[in-house]
Amino acid sequence: MALIVQKYGGTSVGNTDRIKNVARRVAEYRAKGDQIVVVVSAMSGVTDNLIKMAKEISPLPNEREMDVLLSTGEQTTIALTAMALHSLGLKAVSLTGAQAGIVTDGVHTKAKIQNITPKQVHEFLDDGNVVIVAGFQGQTAEGNITTLGRGGSDLTAIALAAALKADLCQIYTDVDGVYTADPRLVPTARKLEEISYDEMLELASLGAKVMQSRSVEFAKKFGVIFEVRSSLNDNPGTIVKEETKNMEDVVIRGVSLDKNQAKVTLAAVPDHPGMAARIFRALGDASINVDMIVQTASHGSGTPATDISFTLDKPELLKAQKVLAGIKSNIGYREVIADENIGKLSIVGVGMRSHSGVAAKMFDALAQANVNIQMISTSEIKISVVIDLAKGEQAMKSVHAAFLG
Amino acid sequence: MALIVQKYGGTSVGNTDRIKNVARRVAEYRAKGDQIVVVVSAMSGVTDNLIKMAKEISPLPNEREMDVLLSTGEQTTIALTAMALHSLGLKAVSLTGAQAGIVTDGVHTKAKIQNITPKQVHEFLDDGNVVIVAGFQGQTAEGNITTLGRGGSDLTAIALAAALKADLCQIYTDVDGVYTADPRLVPTARKLEEISYDEMLELASLGAKVMQSRSVEFAKKFGVIFEVRSSLNDNPGTIVKEETKNMEDVVIRGVSLDKNQAKVTLAAVPDHPGMAARIFRALGDASINVDMIVQTASHGSGTPATDISFTLDKPELLKAQKVLAGIKSNIGYREVIADENIGKLSIVGVGMRSHSGVAAKMFDALAQANVNIQMISTSEIKISVVIDLAKGEQAMKSVHAAFLG
Repeated sequence: MALIVQKYGGTSVGNTDRIKNVARRVAEYRAKGDQIVVVVSAMSGVTDNLIKMAKEISPLPNEREMDVLLSTGEQTTIALTAMALHSLGLKAVSLTGAQAGIVTDGVHTKAKIQNITPKQVHEFLDDGNVVIVAGFQGQTAEGNITTLGRGGSDLTAIALAAALKADLCQIYTDVDGVYTADPRLVPTARKLEEISYDEMLELASLGAKVMQSRSVEFAKKFGVIFEVRSSLNDNPGTIVKEETKNMEDVVIRGVSLDKNQAKVTLAAVPDHPGMAARIFRALGDASINVDMIVQTASHGSGTPATDISFTLDKPELLKAQKVLAGIKSNIGYREVIADENIGKLSIVGVGMRSHSGVAAKMFDALAQANVNIQMISTSEIKISVVIDLAKGEQAMKSVHAAFLG
Repeated sequence: MALIVQKYGGTSVGNTDRIKNVARRVAEYRAKGDQIVVVVSAMSGVTDNLIKMAKEISPLPNEREMDVLLSTGEQTTIALTAMALHSLGLKAVSLTGAQAGIVTDGVHTKAKIQNITPKQVHEFLDDGNVVIVAGFQGQTAEGNITTLGRGGSDLTAIALAAALKADLCQIYTDVDGVYTADPRLVPTARKLEEISYDEMLELASLGAKVMQSRSVEFAKKFGVIFEVRSSLNDNPGTIVKEETKNMEDVVIRGVSLDKNQAKVTLAAVPDHPGMAARIFRALGDASINVDMIVQTASHGSGTPATDISFTLDKPELLKAQKVLAGIKSNIGYREVIADENIGKLSIVGVGMRSHSGVAAKMFDALAQANVNIQMISTSEIKISVVIDLAKGEQAMKSVHAAFLG
């Protein structure tokens, strides 16, 4: 008898018929005698609708209250999923994040899991139940409702799998697994049988929509092997696990395009030590995640000054602009230039470490596609460039063709 | 500085604009220096939509899970109301029923409040916040989410007012107060300045839509004086309090029509002692509230048998029929006849006790309106009759005219 954690995303539970499908899949596993913990997201569209209502009331809603609001989305799904399992004759019980013992810090809308005490989960499992846990949410030690931010439901599943010492963690989504590139954009993309945490991490952080990096990081840290697979068919998915020897033979594992970032440039920042630290500490204090950072010479003249550019998630742009406006007199920059029409194109692969000329090959492919590079950032196993959003897909196809055929 | 509990129903918080209106009203009171606790219902339509989804999944959804599902409705409203107050520059914080310390028994979908420990409410009030509490919900001592059933938000407000020793409890609704009859049905109906708990209790239990009887019972038990008033204007409402001497001079306080009941007849129940007890114990065990009960001679022939009729809330009819089917062999009745097309018409007034001929006058008014009486039930301060639903409004007008002009 295995203990399996299954996570179903918003599309997989998008309406009551799909919830019934999820229940049927769970019942098939249950029939084999396995114990099942199901983690579900909010039904697709529900979270957007809640955010819409909040914005009607306030352009920048209080984050504690956003968490109270958004956590209702998953709570709705757990109840409906439990009902669907009852209809199939199974014992099932739903738990909110708080009830499942998920304790987080107090950073509302993007809380971090501090610990999980899944006492009730164990009790209900031992009593023969399928246990359905609300993804994306927890509570602070003081009892305030929190949400985990983007990709939070995946994190709930992986963290629960670690806390429960589950035998298997399955992330069900609307794609068959991890591809060498988004198959909707690159028709020649291929599904990977397996991928290392590090490669997945880079792909995740680079906009491959499959998973957020924090969930993969958590899985890597606690050694949770998980499978990304489709809730729409029975095809095997992609196994994500520690890197093995033969994985390194492949130079590039995949190409990704992140359309969800914005670029911010602080023009004419006085060229003194400590300026960058002040800027990014202010952003960090506001819990805004910055991704790529590039510093270049200023276009202006006069006193020594530089331009500092960085990328961040588009939804955080407004908040970041507020923060930057607040420190303008302190920093003394000239202006903030924001650009939402950018894409971040990346290639990833552990094999890149031992192969030279990878960057040159990528830049060459971009040049052939007539794509201008605005920013560059590299790590041991990935290279990212910021380009014009309008040229994103064309650039992606060209780069995929160069490395993966 | 007074402590005021204000309750706003589903219509008053029916969309984001109305929630902003509620916030403005709260802000006016707050500006006077009062401490405010706001209790809110789910936005109108939200609960129905949740029930619809549940029914798509299961005709008779598990009640524990119904509570997990339905409690999201009020949780959505508290968050949005807090945001609306923030937009007006007020400090405000939302609390679920569980967070507000509302502990109930474990009878899901119609839990009873066992105790309230409003520790967090006090703390947040002392810290200068308006505290917004989700109506209709609580949790068991074990931490399961419960809901209080129909009228639960009123109950939350009155119970909180009692627990907090509030100076005032205001029940905001879409009517101006308590009327001698529903003004939408009887144009000559008048608003009452005050009414006794007992009269309100009878009106409430008899379908005057304003409030459920349990909330009034609770208020009476704990001496919570409350005001029923409109959230759409600033008119004074109706004060509900202990009966006073001059109240008894009025014979009839009001006429009400309950369209939300169904009549069930058990035909040919063997005429043995203990039969009625068995039937109503079985219904009670299933937490089904029965209202009027009448036993008549059976229409059939042969062995001694009687017909037993009772009324109950329409939404409980299906469940009651299941319970009755389950005890059929035990009881040995011939058949169950259900009728949803009935109305319960009632007159109420503490003055009735000291005036004779009230029943005769009522029956006479019904006869003049050509309305047939199916069942009769009386108490010290009310008389109720079950009639054909189609004749309900006509009957109401005739009875109101006879007593209240």
